[in-house]
Amino acid sequence: MTRIKTVDLATTSGAYYAPATLAPANTEIMHVSGQPGSTSGGIVPADYESQIQLALTNLRKVMIIGGATVKDILKLTILIVNYDKTQRKHTRHIQKFLEGHRPAITLVPVTQLAAPNWLFEIDAVIALPSTSPSVPLQLTIDSAEKTLDVIIVGAGLAGLTAATELQRAGHSFIVLEARDRVGGKTWSQVLPNGEQGVIDVGAAWINSTNQSRMYALAKRFGAEILEQNTTGKCVLQDADGNCSTFEYGELPKFDIAIARDVARIRDMVEADCQTLDPARPQNAEWDSMTFEAYLRARGASAEAIATATVWTRAMLGQDPKDISALYFLTYCRSGGGLLQMRSDRLGGGQHLRIRQGTQLMAIGLSKELPNGTVGLSTPVSSITQSGINSDVEVVTTNQKKYRARKVITTVPSPVLKTILFTPDLPPSKKLWSESSTYGYYTKAMMTFREPFWVEKGYCGLTQSFTGPASVIRDTSSLPDQKYVLTCFMSSDLGRAWAALSTPEREQALIKQIGQLFQSGLEASRDFISMVTYEWTSDPYSGWGCPCPSLASGVMDSLGGNGLREPFGNLHFAGTETAINWRGYMEGAVESGERAASEVIKELTTVLARL
Amino acid sequence: MTRIKTVDLATTSGAYYAPATLAPANTEIMHVSGQPGSTSGGIVPADYESQIQLALTNLRKVMIIGGATVKDILKLTILIVNYDKTQRKHTRHIQKFLEGHRPAITLVPVTQLAAPNWLFEIDAVIALPSTSPSVPLQLTIDSAEKTLDVIIVGAGLAGLTAATELQRAGHSFIVLEARDRVGGKTWSQVLPNGEQGVIDVGAAWINSTNQSRMYALAKRFGAEILEQNTTGKCVLQDADGNCSTFEYGELPKFDIAIARDVARIRDMVEADCQTLDPARPQNAEWDSMTFEAYLRARGASAEAIATATVWTRAMLGQDPKDISALYFLTYCRSGGGLLQMRSDRLGGGQHLRIRQGTQLMAIGLSKELPNGTVGLSTPVSSITQSGINSDVEVVTTNQKKYRARKVITTVPSPVLKTILFTPDLPPSKKLWSESSTYGYYTKAMMTFREPFWVEKGYCGLTQSFTGPASVIRDTSSLPDQKYVLTCFMSSDLGRAWAALSTPEREQALIKQIGQLFQSGLEASRDFISMVTYEWTSDPYSGWGCPCPSLASGVMDSLGGNGLREPFGNLHFAGTETAINWRGYMEGAVESGERAASEVIKELTTVLARL
Repeated sequence: MTRIKTVDLATTSGAYYAPATLAPANTEIMHVSGQPGSTSGGIVPADYESQIQLALTNLRKVMIIGGATVKDILKLTILIVNYDKTQRKHTRHIQKFLEGHRPAITLVPVTQLAAPNWLFEIDAVIALPSTSPSVPLQLTIDSAEKTLDVIIVGAGLAGLTAATELQRAGHSFIVLEARDRVGGKTWSQVLPNGEQGVIDVGAAWINSTNQSRMYALAKRFGAEILEQNTTGKCVLQDADGNCSTFEYGELPKFDIAIARDVARIRDMVEADCQTLDPARPQNAEWDSMTFEAYLRARGASAEAIATATVWTRAMLGQDPKDISALYFLTYCRSGGGLLQMRSDRLGGGQHLRIRQGTQLMAIGLSKELPNGTVGLSTPVSSITQSGINSDVEVVTTNQKKYRARKVITTVPSPVLKTILFTPDLPPSKKLWSESSTYGYYTKAMMTFREPFWVEKGYCGLTQSFTGPASVIRDTSSLPDQKYVLTCFMSSDLGRAWAALSTPEREQALIKQIGQLFQSGLEASRDFISMVTYEWTSDPYSGWGCPCPSLASGVMDSLGGNGLREPFGNLHFAGTETAINWRGYMEGAVESGERAASEVIKELTTVLARL
Repeated sequence: MTRIKTVDLATTSGAYYAPATLAPANTEIMHVSGQPGSTSGGIVPADYESQIQLALTNLRKVMIIGGATVKDILKLTILIVNYDKTQRKHTRHIQKFLEGHRPAITLVPVTQLAAPNWLFEIDAVIALPSTSPSVPLQLTIDSAEKTLDVIIVGAGLAGLTAATELQRAGHSFIVLEARDRVGGKTWSQVLPNGEQGVIDVGAAWINSTNQSRMYALAKRFGAEILEQNTTGKCVLQDADGNCSTFEYGELPKFDIAIARDVARIRDMVEADCQTLDPARPQNAEWDSMTFEAYLRARGASAEAIATATVWTRAMLGQDPKDISALYFLTYCRSGGGLLQMRSDRLGGGQHLRIRQGTQLMAIGLSKELPNGTVGLSTPVSSITQSGINSDVEVVTTNQKKYRARKVITTVPSPVLKTILFTPDLPPSKKLWSESSTYGYYTKAMMTFREPFWVEKGYCGLTQSFTGPASVIRDTSSLPDQKYVLTCFMSSDLGRAWAALSTPEREQALIKQIGQLFQSGLEASRDFISMVTYEWTSDPYSGWGCPCPSLASGVMDSLGGNGLREPFGNLHFAGTETAINWRGYMEGAVESGERAASEVIKELTTVLARL
C-alpha cells in the first residue's frame, strides 16, 4: 500500500525513478543523512559495487529504525565519485533496492566524499506511513475456539516436519497454509498432453549420505529413487557461444593458465567456506564485499568470474555482484562446501531424484497428521503477541482468528513483509526480511521423444556463459520413458529469456540445446513440450526460488545466529534458517525439527512451572 | 522546545548529527536555498572559515525571517570546494551553530560553486514550529495592580544604574532580577576556610581615568582601591612550553624578526580599531572576515597569531577564528584601543581592584532604591507590547504580571532567547541574540600562603600559548594578607582543563604556575585553595562571561547601532550595548544611563502631549 504518488510526464513513465513525487498531506517527513558504504564496524571495501550495497543496507537500517519502508521514499540523492556514465553500475542495485517504487532521484557526480575511500553515498527524504493501524482487525473475525499449543505458518517440508514432531510430543497445533496444496516449494505436476511421469517444478534433488533426513523421508514414503546421470561428456559454452566438451568432475578445457586460475579460485572458495562455522558464520570483511569484489580482490580472471557466475546463477539465480561474499560462502558451507553442493555424484546436492516427484514427502507427512490440523487456502495476515506469558493471536486473510502459546513461521523471509506483526519484528529481523531477495531463477523442463544427447555420448550436464540456460541437467525418468532436459535460466540471461513469448522461449532453448549437443536437427524434431513455473510471480514463495540471498552488510548486522533466533513466542523455521543444506529440502526439514524442539522445550518448561 | 525527533542507531548517538530526523506531521516545511559565505553587500572573503561563518549567519537570517530556530533544522546539505578531510574545519563552526541540535547532514565535496570565489555553501530543510502560542499565558497569573512608568529587567550594574536615574527623575519603576542577589556578573564571594578577604568570581577591574562612572561609584560606596602590580618580570610560555621573561609593557623576547612582526600586527590592530566610530562601527570587509582571516590576510606570523590568540582568549574566551574581525576591533575600540584595554597601568582595563569586591557598588545602589522596587528571584518569561500607545505587560516564571509604559532589558543577548516577546523581536535583534555566543572563559583564583612570585621578582602577569591558563594576573590583597594568582582558562585550552576533575584542575594549574615562576616547590607547598565559578552553566548570564561575541556577518546586518536601538517601548541596555568599555562594568553603567535617558525623554514627551 504505497501512499507516495508520482508525477509523470508522457516521456517518463518508463524510467525507474519519477520526475517528482508527492507526499500525502499530514505526514511525518524523515530526512536521512548521507549514508556511505561502510559496515557498522567501519570497514570500507575498496570495491565500488560493494560500497553501493552497504550504503543501501545502511539506508535500509535507518528506515527500519525510523519506521519506514522503501515504498515511502520521496527522494534519493546519490553522490558518486569518479562517475562513469558508460557504466552506471548503481542503477542495477538501486532498482533492485526500490522493488519497483519510483522516488524522485538526483544523481550528483563528485570528485570525493567526506572520507577519501568513500566512492558512493546516498541520502533520502521519506514520508512516514501513518502510525494508526492500517488493517482494521476487529471487523468480522471469528473468535478462536480454543488456545492451541502451537500454530505453524506454512505446510511445506519445514512446517509439516514441525507438525509431525509436535504431534509425536503430544502437543495440539494447527498448520495454516496459504496455498491450496501442501509442499511449498516442492511441487510435482503431471505432464501436459497425457505424457507419463511427473515434473518437479520446484525442488528436485536429494542424496543418500549427508541428507539423511530427506533420504529417510523418501524411503518412508516409498519413493523410487533415480540417480543423476554423470556418465558421458559435459559441455561448456564459452562467452562467444562456442561449445567444447569435458569429463564430468573435471574442469572445462580452458587454456592452461586459465584452467589453473579457475581451479585456484574454485579451491580458494572451497577453502574459505570451510573456515566458517555454519551455525554462526562471521566475517565482517567478507560481508562488506560482494562475491564479485571478493573474487576480483583475489585476482580472479574473467573466465574464473564467468565460472563463478555460473555457480551463483545455478545455485541462487544471482550474479556475484548482487550478493554478499559471506552470504555465498555460508550458503556453500551449509551444503558441505562448494564442490559437494554443486556435485551430482554420491553425497552431492544433485545426486538423486524421485520418480513420483518430491512433493510425495509433504503429501505423505500431511496425511499422517490428524484431520483438521492442516488448513489450506488460509494465508496469515497478522500475528500479535501481547506479552511473553500471553497467547499469540494469528489472524488470516479470510478473517479467521487462531490463538496459541507459540507460533512457528516457516515462510520465506520476503513473505514476512506481508504479515502484520504486533509488536513489530525487531530491527535485525526486519532488515533480514526487507533485504533478502531472490535472483531471477526459472527451470524449464524440456521433454523430448528421444534422449538424443545420451545417444551422442553426453551426460546432459552443460554450463554456458551465453545462455539462455546457464546450466542444463538431464532429468529423465527411464522407467517412465520420459526424456527431459531441465534448463536453468537465471539472473540477467534469465530475465531476457523471460521477456520472450512462450514460442520464442521454447525456440531459444531448442536452439541452445542443439548447439550444446551438436544436435540441431534432433532437438527440433524430438521436442514435445516445455513446462515451466514462474516462482517470480508466486507471492507465497516470496516471489522467487530456490532461496533468498542477502546483500552486503546484512549478515554483519544480523549477527551470526540472527535468522533463527526466536522473538518472544514466535519461532523461525524454513530452509533459509537451516544450519545444513540451506536452500535445500534437507535444510527445510532440519529447520522444522529445530523449531519444534525449541517450542517443545519451552512448552514443557512452562508446564513444569505451572 | 524542540519537536524534531532523531532516528539513531546503537552506534550513532555520539555523533553531532543524526542518521535521520523526523518532522512532525502537519508541519510547514521550509526549504532554504544554498547560502554562500558572502555579506549582504556581496563581499566574499578569501578565507574559508570566514565564508563558513558568513554562510551560517546567512542561513540564520533566513531562518529568523521564516520563523524558525536552529532547533527546527531537519537536514543540512554542506557543499565544500577543495574539501580536505584532514582538516574538516567546518565541524567546529557547524557544531557551535547547532548548539547541540542534531539534524541529518550530508556533506558534498565539490570542485566549484556558483561563483568562482565561493568555497562553502549550505542549504537546509526546516520544520517550522507550530504557530499556536506554546506558553499558556492566561492561567493563574496575578494581575498587575497598577501601571508603572518603567520595568527594568536585571539588577546588575546596568539595571541598578537605570533605576537610580529613574528614581532621580521621579518615575515609578520596578527592577525584576532572576537571581537571588543583585550584581549580575559582579559577584564577590568570601573565601572558603575562613580566609580573610573576598574573591571576585566575576568582573574585577576598573580604572580612575577613563572609567569615570565606575571610579565615582567606587568612591561613593567607600571602596578601598588596590592597584594592579606591574613591577617585576612578566613571563611568556611559548608553544613548546618554554618560559622566558620580559618587562611589563614590552614585548616578550621573540627573535627580532618575530618581535618586529608581533609589534607590527599589534600596532596594525591598534591603528585599525582607532579608525572605527565606537557608536556606529561599520566596515563590511572586516565584518566579512574572522579575526584570524584578518590577521592572515595581513601576513601575520605564527607567533603573531598566537599572541593575538592570547588577546582574544583573555578578553573574550574566544579563538580568533571564532569571531568577526570587526567585532573584535570594535570591542577594542570601545575600551580606547587594544593597548589601553589590555593595559594594567593607569587608564588601562586592569588597573585597579576593590578590596571589598566589585559587588559593593551594586549592593550600594540597590540599598539606595525605595523598598520593594527590586524583586529578586523573579525571572521574566514574557514581554508583550500591544501597541506603541499601550502598556507593556511583563510576566514572570512565578506567574506574576507587571505593567508599565516602558521596559528596559539589561540581560545579556543570549538570554533574550529565553524570553517570549510579543510581537517577536525584529529580525536584526533576533539575529543578535541567536548569533551571539560566549567563548569558554573561566577564572580560577589560586590562593597561596606566600607571594613567592613577588619574592622572585615577578609581577605575576604571564601569558601562555600552551595553557591551561592563557593569562595569569596577581590579584592579591596586601591589606588582607591574601596572596592570589587569578588564572584565565579559555577557549579550547579551557575546555580541556574544564573536563578534568577538581583535584586534577588544581594540580594542572599548580604545575603551570611552578613552571612559569620557576617555583615548582613553592607553588605546591604554599597552595591553599582554588575558587572558580562556571559562568558557562549560569542561565542568567546567558551561559558564559565576560561578554558575548558575534561571528562574521552579524554586525553588518545589525547596522552600526542595531544593538541599542529601541523596539517599540522596549529599550536595550547591558554592557554589550555600551559605546565605551563594552564588556566592562563601566560599559554596563553607561548603558544603564543611556537607556534611562531614552526612557525619561519619551515619558516626558508623552506627558507633554497629554
